[in-house]
Amino acid sequence: MSRGGKEQPRGMSRRELLRAVGAAGAGFALGAGGTALSTGTLAARPRREIRDGARDQRVPFYGVHQAGIATPQQEHLHFAAFDLTTKSLEDVRELMRAWTEAGARMCAGEPAGEENTSPFMPPEDTGEALGLRPARLTLTFGFGPTLFEKAGEDRFGIKDSRPEALVEIPPMPGDALEEDSCGGDLGVQACADDPQVAFHAVRNLARIARGTAVMRWSQLGFGRTASTSREQSTPRNLMGFKDGTANIKAEDEELMRRYVWVARGDGPAWMENGTYLVARRIRMFIEVWDRVPLTEQERSIGRHKYSGAPIGAEHEFDPVDLEARDENGDPLIPENSHVRLARENEEQRILRRGYSFTDGMDRERGQLDAGLFFICFQRDPRRQFIPLQRRLARNDLLNEYIRHTGSAIFACPPGAHRGGYVGQILLEGA
Amino acid sequence: MSRGGKEQPRGMSRRELLRAVGAAGAGFALGAGGTALSTGTLAARPRREIRDGARDQRVPFYGVHQAGIATPQQEHLHFAAFDLTTKSLEDVRELMRAWTEAGARMCAGEPAGEENTSPFMPPEDTGEALGLRPARLTLTFGFGPTLFEKAGEDRFGIKDSRPEALVEIPPMPGDALEEDSCGGDLGVQACADDPQVAFHAVRNLARIARGTAVMRWSQLGFGRTASTSREQSTPRNLMGFKDGTANIKAEDEELMRRYVWVARGDGPAWMENGTYLVARRIRMFIEVWDRVPLTEQERSIGRHKYSGAPIGAEHEFDPVDLEARDENGDPLIPENSHVRLARENEEQRILRRGYSFTDGMDRERGQLDAGLFFICFQRDPRRQFIPLQRRLARNDLLNEYIRHTGSAIFACPPGAHRGGYVGQILLEGA
Ligand code: HEM
Ligand code: HEM
Repeated sequence: MSRGGKEQPRGMSRRELLRAVGAAGAGFALGAGGTALSTGTLAARPRREIRDGARDQRVPFYGVHQAGIATPQQEHLHFAAFDLTTKSLEDVRELMRAWTEAGARMCAGEPAGEENTSPFMPPEDTGEALGLRPARLTLTFGFGPTLFEKAGEDRFGIKDSRPEALVEIPPMPGDALEEDSCGGDLGVQACADDPQVAFHAVRNLARIARGTAVMRWSQLGFGRTASTSREQSTPRNLMGFKDGTANIKAEDEELMRRYVWVARGDGPAWMENGTYLVARRIRMFIEVWDRVPLTEQERSIGRHKYSGAPIGAEHEFDPVDLEARDENGDPLIPENSHVRLARENEEQRILRRGYSFTDGMDRERGQLDAGLFFICFQRDPRRQFIPLQRRLARNDLLNEYIRHTGSAIFACPPGAHRGGYVGQILLEGA
Repeated sequence: MSRGGKEQPRGMSRRELLRAVGAAGAGFALGAGGTALSTGTLAARPRREIRDGARDQRVPFYGVHQAGIATPQQEHLHFAAFDLTTKSLEDVRELMRAWTEAGARMCAGEPAGEENTSPFMPPEDTGEALGLRPARLTLTFGFGPTLFEKAGEDRFGIKDSRPEALVEIPPMPGDALEEDSCGGDLGVQACADDPQVAFHAVRNLARIARGTAVMRWSQLGFGRTASTSREQSTPRNLMGFKDGTANIKAEDEELMRRYVWVARGDGPAWMENGTYLVARRIRMFIEVWDRVPLTEQERSIGRHKYSGAPIGAEHEFDPVDLEARDENGDPLIPENSHVRLARENEEQRILRRGYSFTDGMDRERGQLDAGLFFICFQRDPRRQFIPLQRRLARNDLLNEYIRHTGSAIFACPPGAHRGGYVGQILLEGA
């Protein structure tokens, strides 16, 4: 039977192989029982293959800010929240150090850990991203309120460092939160243009956390629902509407400073150049939505579906004129439309960076469990997300078609510099 | 505040608009209360945008065989199983006709239905794929055993047309099937290189089925775990191993005829040029796997992890020598390794076409609910998947790290020709 096919571009000669084995200093000899296993193993690691693809698709891990915020939004998300199982601050430091190191490696398109010295040990990387390009992977780490205080307890002696802005998101009208999708001591946002790369990153971070933290919840997102750069086109969310049109674009440094990055004096020094991430898992009742007339859909949003233009205008980026009225004197952009409510207060602007999700069927309702995993970044959730969402939760016409089922908030510290680690000032200053 | 940005490439002049409105024959006049809504709506439908991208990335919908089988495997999957709620065969025909028509449109990169004639109706397409390219979308439809007989009842009077090969998959050792992930009267496999395109297709088919069928379960897959063409590289599954190396490649027409396509005389005439699809949702205990030494992992599979070569060989496509032994006389490819068991019987070859999945957390175990959504195609599951899986289920070293949680089988009829619909011979011959 023919099983022919083409060979991988790169193998390794026997001599190269011997050199590799020697270099690894592995302390196991060729010719023993494990020979065939170990040679085959080290022989054909496609290291070059990985490195070559990497160049043009990496996002630098280190920097003033963490990546994954101002980075032009990638297509795929794997978000995970973790709970610490340790009581030792030193363990938390160790974890953030290890996560930073592995994170920087993976974002550069390399395996999470050093090459194994022995095939008799579990691999230092789970392997499913070998041969894939870095795909603009970014990892954004954040600290939840419970890291500082849980059930009144100052678990790690860092309660005094908790920023006042890191509040628990208060209950909102209509909330239907499921505890399983809420909160977390630590949050990790992995974004990439390849879902397997994002998955791989979170999985390896979870592996590294073993013994220190356990995953609390995780969410996959396919398809961005915002644009965060002027270079990007506006995607559509699962309601079929362009989403991200009026978003803050990262090129606008003035807006980023004003609305996104924590400034000196905003709170504790360890958050300077950081930001606050709010995540909301928002289920859409798409089967209901799909039976709503087009005009109704458009009135709920306040924009036209196909063009993305404000109601009454023609082009997506035409200015939103909240004063415009039809011949009956009714506002073209309805009173309780999403867009009108969302832009009512200029102080409350946010950087949106959410993703569409579907988690299979909701058996109870016999419908797809799908929607928008909403993520936003801001300088102070008390002045931005919270009042904004309160207004939406009360009056938004969209509410008939959506339900918030998950909620979390994380303080994302500034970026690390090479040699340092994310959260270092908080964890070592304490 | 600046909200500047670039405009969409294409709007529509007022004259074009009037023509469009006229052509639609919609029977609503410009200037009435709904003016602004309707004009904005029709004005900027990015039809051209859609059509342009479509050309080089379409897979023909019509043909001798259904697409999505021999098609070089796409990167993303949305699979859905449906149960019929009707008792009328004519309704089933109507559904397959409507699905065929909408399916052909969507695979060509067009909306699921004709452009709306009235904005006061729900849109004929949910919209979230507007502006996306067809991304090689394929839709593959199948009929489950329960279409022919359910609880002993000949529901649609087509029991006699049931192929003998369309058996229920018998219970296998170690099965941990969840009813929610099993069976279905109808199965739809949507594959595309863009997950939103695959999602959109299934969602619109579900919408079209309203009143006739309800979704029973659905599964998203990210990342193919096989290659089905010599032109494709071999991907890695979530165990980090190359998967698909020894798969049947569609270019090998001899193998496709022998193992995949139903031939004249194999059973009822309506299945000629069709095939049988078996799906298994296989959960991986990746946290356990990740702690297993490399050599153990390799011994379980029977291949080297990084190169994909058979144990003892160097390159991925080196021949698998089941006789090869080490100096102690032990087989290099262990007795109960996956590869040895899977290739033991040449009669049982299958076309694998599965996907990696993750459905968030398994709260009970505190682990990622992730694994392989296994899909295979074959001429006769009684002679291929079933005995093969029985052998694997009994002895495979992999069993320690996996658990089958879902199972389904569908008879996929041949492709439709333009003007006809998928399943027509079955449904009209009856
Ligand atoms: C499933 C839920 C949601 C959907 C479907 C949705 C959809 C949309 C759409 C289609 C737009 C118009 C296009 C754009 O400018 O991006 C928009 C704008 C916006 N949305 Fe949402 N959104 C949702 C939830 C939220 C939430 C929870 C918030 C914040 C609490 C929010 C805040 C905003 C803001 C600030 C704008 C821009 C308004 C403007 O300045 O014009 N959205 N949304
Ligand atoms: C999570 C479960 C599974 C994993 C991780 C897995 C993984 C693999 C891997 C890594 C290979 C070697 C590379 C290749 O030739 O593709 C392979 C081969 C194969 N697998 Fe699986 N597999 C799984 C389930 C199954 C199931 C359920 C079946 C069928 C009942 C199956 C049938 C085969 C076959 C026929 C081969 C080719 C063997 C040969 O001809 O060399 N696999 N699998």
